Amino acid sequence: MRIPILKLHNYLLISIQTEIDDQTAIQFQEDLLAKIHKTGASGVVIDLTSVDIIDSFIAKVLGDVVSMSDLMGTRVVLTGIQPAVAMTLIDLGIHLQNVPTALDLEQGLVKLHQELGG
Amino acid sequence: MRIPILKLHNYLLISIQTEIDDQTAIQFQEDLLAKIHKTGASGVVIDLTSVDIIDSFIAKVLGDVVSMSDLMGTRVVLTGIQPAVAMTLIDLGIHLQNVPTALDLEQGLVKLHQELGG
Repeated sequence: MRIPILKLHNYLLISIQTEIDDQTAIQFQEDLLAKIHKTGASGVVIDLTSVDIIDSFIAKVLGDVVSMSDLMGTRVVLTGIQPAVAMTLIDLGIHLQNVPTALDLEQGLVKLHQELGG
Repeated sequence: MRIPILKLHNYLLISIQTEIDDQTAIQFQEDLLAKIHKTGASGVVIDLTSVDIIDSFIAKVLGDVVSMSDLMGTRVVLTGIQPAVAMTLIDLGIHLQNVPTALDLEQGLVKLHQELGG
């Protein structure tokens, strides 16, 4: 199953709520970039509140999709990163520098709004 | 895979973007009611923009979940119902009377806001 991407005004919202396998992650990357291209969204919030653990492949795909979206001119905010996920990311050397983060979806939208000078 | 339910302020947002099987539909029903109970959300938007076809079982589950949410005191708005889905629902005798509908997610949120007297 694909991860649904919601369009709300100028933003795309994604909530990852299940363990995702490699194929789903790659599909998500493609879907998100295609949707950014199609909608011209200026910002994306990816909410990871319900993600308990993350492996190196998924972490890399996530880091990549942030960089790719950035290249396309769209700002990505990651929200709800749990302690174990934060530890894994840093252990793997994925620092996600310059990636804004926030506590939850609401705060993520506020952050996007600030980042985009709204 | 479960259908993700996003919480945004006082509302829950769901976008169904793949064909769902019976098991997923039942799981969604349980998940949504549990989330309404947990969050005390006052409104729910279920976006069906990406649903091309619907069968009688899924249609019944959808009708039921609206009635159940209503019983719990939460208003549900259905958005993005496509022509084929509308035809199937009426053919099946599922009229979803008293269920507010809207064109897309944004309009659904506006409608919820009006319905709830915001």
